[in-house]
Amino acid sequence: MKLDYKRLTGQDYKAGCPAADGEMVVDTGAALEDGDDQVDPWNVSSSSAKGVDYNKLIVRFGSSKIDQELVDRIARVTGKTPHRFLRRGIFFSHRDMHQILDAYEKQKSFYLYTGRGPSSEAMHVGHLIPFIFTKWLQDVFDVPLVIQMTDDEKYLWKDLSLDERDFFKNITTSPAFYRNVVKVQKHVTFNQVKGIFGFTDSDCIGKVSFPAVQAAPSFSSSFPQIFGERTDVQCLIPCAIDQDPYFRMTRDVAPRIGYPKPALLHSTFFPALQGAQTKMSASDANSSIFLTDSAKQIKNKINKHAFSGGKDTVEEHRKCGGNPDVDVSFMYLSFFLEDDEQLEKIRQVRHGPRSSRDPAEDR
Amino acid sequence: MKLDYKRLTGQDYKAGCPAADGEMVVDTGAALEDGDDQVDPWNVSSSSAKGVDYNKLIVRFGSSKIDQELVDRIARVTGKTPHRFLRRGIFFSHRDMHQILDAYEKQKSFYLYTGRGPSSEAMHVGHLIPFIFTKWLQDVFDVPLVIQMTDDEKYLWKDLSLDERDFFKNITTSPAFYRNVVKVQKHVTFNQVKGIFGFTDSDCIGKVSFPAVQAAPSFSSSFPQIFGERTDVQCLIPCAIDQDPYFRMTRDVAPRIGYPKPALLHSTFFPALQGAQTKMSASDANSSIFLTDSAKQIKNKINKHAFSGGKDTVEEHRKCGGNPDVDVSFMYLSFFLEDDEQLEKIRQVRHGPRSSRDPAEDR
Repeated sequence: MKLDYKRLTGQDYKAGCPAADGEMVVDTGAALEDGDDQVDPWNVSSSSAKGVDYNKLIVRFGSSKIDQELVDRIARVTGKTPHRFLRRGIFFSHRDMHQILDAYEKQKSFYLYTGRGPSSEAMHVGHLIPFIFTKWLQDVFDVPLVIQMTDDEKYLWKDLSLDERDFFKNITTSPAFYRNVVKVQKHVTFNQVKGIFGFTDSDCIGKVSFPAVQAAPSFSSSFPQIFGERTDVQCLIPCAIDQDPYFRMTRDVAPRIGYPKPALLHSTFFPALQGAQTKMSASDANSSIFLTDSAKQIKNKINKHAFSGGKDTVEEHRKCGGNPDVDVSFMYLSFFLEDDEQLEKIRQVRHGPRSSRDPAEDR
Repeated sequence: MKLDYKRLTGQDYKAGCPAADGEMVVDTGAALEDGDDQVDPWNVSSSSAKGVDYNKLIVRFGSSKIDQELVDRIARVTGKTPHRFLRRGIFFSHRDMHQILDAYEKQKSFYLYTGRGPSSEAMHVGHLIPFIFTKWLQDVFDVPLVIQMTDDEKYLWKDLSLDERDFFKNITTSPAFYRNVVKVQKHVTFNQVKGIFGFTDSDCIGKVSFPAVQAAPSFSSSFPQIFGERTDVQCLIPCAIDQDPYFRMTRDVAPRIGYPKPALLHSTFFPALQGAQTKMSASDANSSIFLTDSAKQIKNKINKHAFSGGKDTVEEHRKCGGNPDVDVSFMYLSFFLEDDEQLEKIRQVRHGPRSSRDPAEDR
C-alpha cells in the first residue's frame, strides 16, 4: 500500500535557506559551533534565530535521524499517513524505533510514556506537541499509554512553594513504581548524574535523585495494574529532545536491572514568541500562548510579540521577502496547520517570489 | 510522688571499673581516643571490649546526657517507675526530651517514631531494644506510634536482591509522605550528606537521597491519617545512637520547612556474642541470638560464642573474679533482667568478692 503524503523535514523551516521546491535539506552547512546551543532538561537556548541546530544535536547526543526510510516504514506498518510532525521533521530523531517496529510486526506490543512538568496554571501550546503526537501514536498503534506529572521536578527546580500547588501527581507512586525508582537509584552514582546532568556538590539531593523518578515509568513492571507480571514490554517515549539526558541514563541502567531499554522519538522545540533562540516557556507569560488565552488575546500576543524576521523598511521587505526560517508565526503554522500544500503556499508567499531573491542561489 | 527505683547507669556496666555500691560513674576517665569508636548508621565498632565510649559520643554528637534529673522528671510526669533501660543508662543520651515533657505537662501531646531495617528472615534480640522501650513509652505516655520498615535502605546498602525480599514496606508511602520526602530532599545538598554520612561521588544516588526517606516520618504532616491537618505535633524518636546522623540532618532541615524538630532518646548498642567491640548483627549468624532460635540453640550459642572476659587460669579467675564490664552474658542480663537487686547480686558474684580484687581500689 502506498500512502499519499509528502515529507518536508523540519530542517526545511529551521536551518539553512530551504530549497524552494521543498526538497529535503540534510546538511545545514556551516552554522553554529558546538556549544553554541544549550540543550538540557532545564535550559534550551541557541544563538541562532533559526533555533537549535538539530543535526548537530543528533551527533552530540548519539541518537539517530528519523529519515525517509523510517517514516515510510511507520506508514507501511500502521497503514496510516504519517503525522505532520513526522512529515515535517518536527519529530526528527529517535533511538531504537526500528526495534519497536520489528517487534510490532511480530505482534509484540509496546507502550507509550510521556509526561508534563506542571509549571503554571495553564499549559501553553508548546506543551501540546508531545501530547498531540502521543495521541496519534496511540491511535495508530493501539497501545497503552502512561503520563507522568512531574510536579516533584518542578518543585525541586523552581522556586514554587509546594503548598501553592494544588496537585502533586508523582505522589501516587505505587509500591511497584517506588521499587523501580529505588532499583534505578541503586545503579546510578552521583558521578554519573554529575556527568549527565551537570549537577554539583551544592545541588540538593532531590535534584540528584530525581532522574530515577523520571526513569521508572520506562519499565513495564512499574505498572502491574496495566501489565500484570510482565517486565519485558518495551516502552516508547515521545518527548522533546531536551529530555534525552534522562533517558540516556535510563537506557544505560535498563539492562543492568533486567529490563528492556526504552525507545525514543525526539521532537524539536516549540519556539518562544520572541524567536527560536529559546523555547516557549510557561514561566515567561509574554513568550507563551496559553490554552486558556482567548482568540483576541492570542491575536494581540502574536501582533505584539511574535518575531517575524521582517526587513527594516517596506522596500527591503518587498525586495527580499519575509524569512520563514526565523518567522515565528510561520513556524507555529508548521506545527499546527495540517494541510501541506497550504503551508507550502504560505511559505512561498511569506518568503516572497523566488525570482526576487539572490539569483546566485539558482546557479 | 516518690517512686521506688534506683538508677544504675550503663557506664556502671560498660566503662571503667564500677564502684561496688553501684553509685553512678559519670566520668569514664582515660579510655579511648577520639576516632577509636566508629559509630554511623552502617558501622559500629570499638577497640575496647567494654564497647563504645558513650560519654565521648555525647560530646562528639552534641547530644545531652540522660541524667538523674531527667529520669526523675520522666518518673514524675508519667507516675511510673522508669523503665530499666532508663534506670541502667541503656538509653543514655537525648535531644530535647525536656521540651517534650514541658509540652506534655501542658497537655500538648507528641508521637513516637521508630523503625527497623529488615536485613534477615528473623529479628535478633538486639532489634528488640528500641521496640521494648517504644512500647513502654507508648504505654506510659499514651501517644500514637509510627514504625518505618526501611527495606529500601537495606536494598541500597546490602547486596540483597530486591526480589528475594518478600516485603517492601517503604513502598506504602502516601502522597503526604512523599511530599515531605521531596521537601526534605530540596533542603539538603549533596555537600551536606557528604559531611554527615561520608558519602562520596561514587555512591549511588539511592544512598545519597535515602536520608530524606528516614527523615520524613519525623513530621506529623506525613501522616494525615493520624494527625489530620496538623503539622505541629512533635515527634519523639527512640533509637540506637548510630541512627543519630539521620536525625541531626532532620533537625537541621525541620525549621526551614516549617516543622518542629524531632526529639530523640538514644540507646547504647546491643553487644555481639563475641563482645562489645561490635553490635549484634543479623548478617553474622554467629554473633546473634535470633527470635526464632530455640532455648537449646540459644544455650549452645551462649556457651560456644559468648565472650566472658574470664581469666586464663582457674587460679587467676578465683583471685580476680569475672569482669562484668566485658562479660557479654552479664551485659545481656542488664538489658533483659527486670529485677535490679538480682542483677546487682549477679554482678557481685561474677565480679568476685570485693576484697579479692586489687586492694589499691579501696584506697
